[in-house]
Amino acid sequence: MDDASQVDAALEREALALFRALSPLGRRAFFSPGIPIQARGGFETLAKAFRLSAEDLEPALLGSPVEGIPEVRQRWRNWQRRAVDPALPSTLPLVTAGLSHGLSLLADLFGGEGRAVAIPRPFWGNYRQAFAVRTGARVLTAPGYVDGSYNIHVTSEALSGLPPGEPAVAILNFPSNPGGTSLTPAERRAVRASLVEVAEQRPLVVICDDAYAGLVYEPEIPRDSLFWDLIGSHSNLVPVKVDGATKEFSFFGGRVGFLTFGFDPESDAARALESKVKMLVRSGLGAPVAASQMVLLQALRKEGIEAEVEAVRRLLEERYRALKGALAGADPELLTVLPFNSGCFALVELPERLGLTSEQVRLHLLEHHDTGLISIEPRYLRIAHCSVAAEALPELARRLERGVAELTAAT
Amino acid sequence: MDDASQVDAALEREALALFRALSPLGRRAFFSPGIPIQARGGFETLAKAFRLSAEDLEPALLGSPVEGIPEVRQRWRNWQRRAVDPALPSTLPLVTAGLSHGLSLLADLFGGEGRAVAIPRPFWGNYRQAFAVRTGARVLTAPGYVDGSYNIHVTSEALSGLPPGEPAVAILNFPSNPGGTSLTPAERRAVRASLVEVAEQRPLVVICDDAYAGLVYEPEIPRDSLFWDLIGSHSNLVPVKVDGATKEFSFFGGRVGFLTFGFDPESDAARALESKVKMLVRSGLGAPVAASQMVLLQALRKEGIEAEVEAVRRLLEERYRALKGALAGADPELLTVLPFNSGCFALVELPERLGLTSEQVRLHLLEHHDTGLISIEPRYLRIAHCSVAAEALPELARRLERGVAELTAAT
Repeated sequence: MDDASQVDAALEREALALFRALSPLGRRAFFSPGIPIQARGGFETLAKAFRLSAEDLEPALLGSPVEGIPEVRQRWRNWQRRAVDPALPSTLPLVTAGLSHGLSLLADLFGGEGRAVAIPRPFWGNYRQAFAVRTGARVLTAPGYVDGSYNIHVTSEALSGLPPGEPAVAILNFPSNPGGTSLTPAERRAVRASLVEVAEQRPLVVICDDAYAGLVYEPEIPRDSLFWDLIGSHSNLVPVKVDGATKEFSFFGGRVGFLTFGFDPESDAARALESKVKMLVRSGLGAPVAASQMVLLQALRKEGIEAEVEAVRRLLEERYRALKGALAGADPELLTVLPFNSGCFALVELPERLGLTSEQVRLHLLEHHDTGLISIEPRYLRIAHCSVAAEALPELARRLERGVAELTAAT
Repeated sequence: MDDASQVDAALEREALALFRALSPLGRRAFFSPGIPIQARGGFETLAKAFRLSAEDLEPALLGSPVEGIPEVRQRWRNWQRRAVDPALPSTLPLVTAGLSHGLSLLADLFGGEGRAVAIPRPFWGNYRQAFAVRTGARVLTAPGYVDGSYNIHVTSEALSGLPPGEPAVAILNFPSNPGGTSLTPAERRAVRASLVEVAEQRPLVVICDDAYAGLVYEPEIPRDSLFWDLIGSHSNLVPVKVDGATKEFSFFGGRVGFLTFGFDPESDAARALESKVKMLVRSGLGAPVAASQMVLLQALRKEGIEAEVEAVRRLLEERYRALKGALAGADPELLTVLPFNSGCFALVELPERLGLTSEQVRLHLLEHHDTGLISIEPRYLRIAHCSVAAEALPELARRLERGVAELTAAT
């Protein structure tokens, strides 16, 4: 499929809501096989830095197809689908240079001047940069938590002022950054129903940011992505999955991410989206990184890699439990602990009546308690329990509480 | 420098022409330290894929600062400047995810709706995609060759219709793709003078695409980049260097590129540009690839790496000489050989009077002579001598000539 009109016709036929939600750049994007780069053999000194078979070394040094190395794509698809109903369609994932790159490709595809993008508050600043600063989209927010629980209707509230029929994008992130929140089964059903209601009104692209996929610590919380629940839920609802090896395989230095759509790999819609994304990857980046794809492949091929991933999850669960226990005893007059059950973070909110900003508390903790937390305006503090030893977390929680008490007394 | 107005004030003060040439996105880009990603230790299976010291393994797995790993930046600067006058200022290079990513960052910074971008014909299709398709810039071209020689005034001709004062971008690529051309000392002086004349009229950003840096095969042709000649040549002329390990170190799979400006590393202009580029890298990509930076670093640190690079250059020179010799005997009635002396390619033009298109010849060679060349409309054929054994090149040249002769006889 290497003709713009074929690509668009396929989407109009098989994925009308998605087609209607494309940005101007997304509309004109399609991949035409250009002048291929002719690679030569790599340097011995570079080759020596890898411990790979000769067969794997060659692609690591010589480069990746624009869409990613076929075996990596196939094995990542298997990895994503290891507990998923085989009847649910999903494309062969397109390789990106990390999760942020995947988000910025989606901003290219579905963002653009004035496009409404619904995001729960508080949120990771990169969403605003990728969508609003880069493409001119409008970020519309609503509170991610209401009365100490996840706000089921956050997307609908954020888009409430938008004229019916106007396409929109929603970004949802579970386990969340900065909240550390994943949905219970009942919340998932309710969120799905609320998104379907929004889709009654407009084409709705729902980006499932699955950066922290699988890092779930409570047995009643489902580990699989909301993406799978959204496939086929409404003809106007277009779920997209962004995930990657960055956190799932702790390969921060590798920049390997993936973009997956809810279509059969053999469909024309899948081929059309592949054409569009490939053009955007080639024009913005050239190609994704072959060297780290080949390194990740060693893990994906390995028998028993699930046990290795599970061991990391268990280590992080210990830290999570240590913090959970410590915060359970915190004075609710000083700290509101938002619901956290997964991921790398916990979020506390300073009660409004204290009259403190999170930045005041952050600076106080840094100066007087040697403790570094992230402040998120106006009154949130993020604790990264994933990077702190379990033994140190109770003390961290105590210092936080004490710091807030000191500032409250002082004002 | 983490405030938009500081960043812009520094550029307005120290780099006015560059400031005036910024795109709307380039104008609003600045880096504010966001929520840092907290990394955890990597997987054993991933670690095993590298043969690096424990000290180097950690950054390879854990990630890179947005601007690149400091030692990589410093050593690449030394590499770039190994034969350059120490008095010439240049920034500490910013690491990009390969050369195409560097170009697309420059398109973000200096492109945008309607911006004039001068490019010699024929040219690599990615230029149009990064500047025109992505940002809405206008590509203006002029012939890269006139009467069988490099067209000294190509930039000035491409911009001839542009109102005075309107900023413009020029892209120049030596050794060139698809031409395989580098400038003689006399041509360099003339090109520089012609660019200075253009800069009398307008802020002119000159992007020196140095993808094939150093691959020069004739002793009278300078090997260093035109970038160095342009620094300080005119207050309105803003040279920018994009280069990378892709071809210089044959590390196609690594995606390590660099962006360098002609300012002192300690200047406010350098800091302001770093802020802008970092924001663009973070919002579009997250960070550059740490794993391949650490692999490249092994080469940059190595005593005698210049000899390894020189050995690759010599191998390619053999292929170049084999093709040069073979084409010297070609019938000028059938083929016009454009001046080539460097890089990976040679370009032949079909004389207009033959009435043949390059696509006709390409298909004929593929079908009847088992030979694959790249056709560039309307009448160019590109030979990638770098990827063909020297012994095979005379036969390739013969088949090309024979193919054209057969088609000419048939029409």
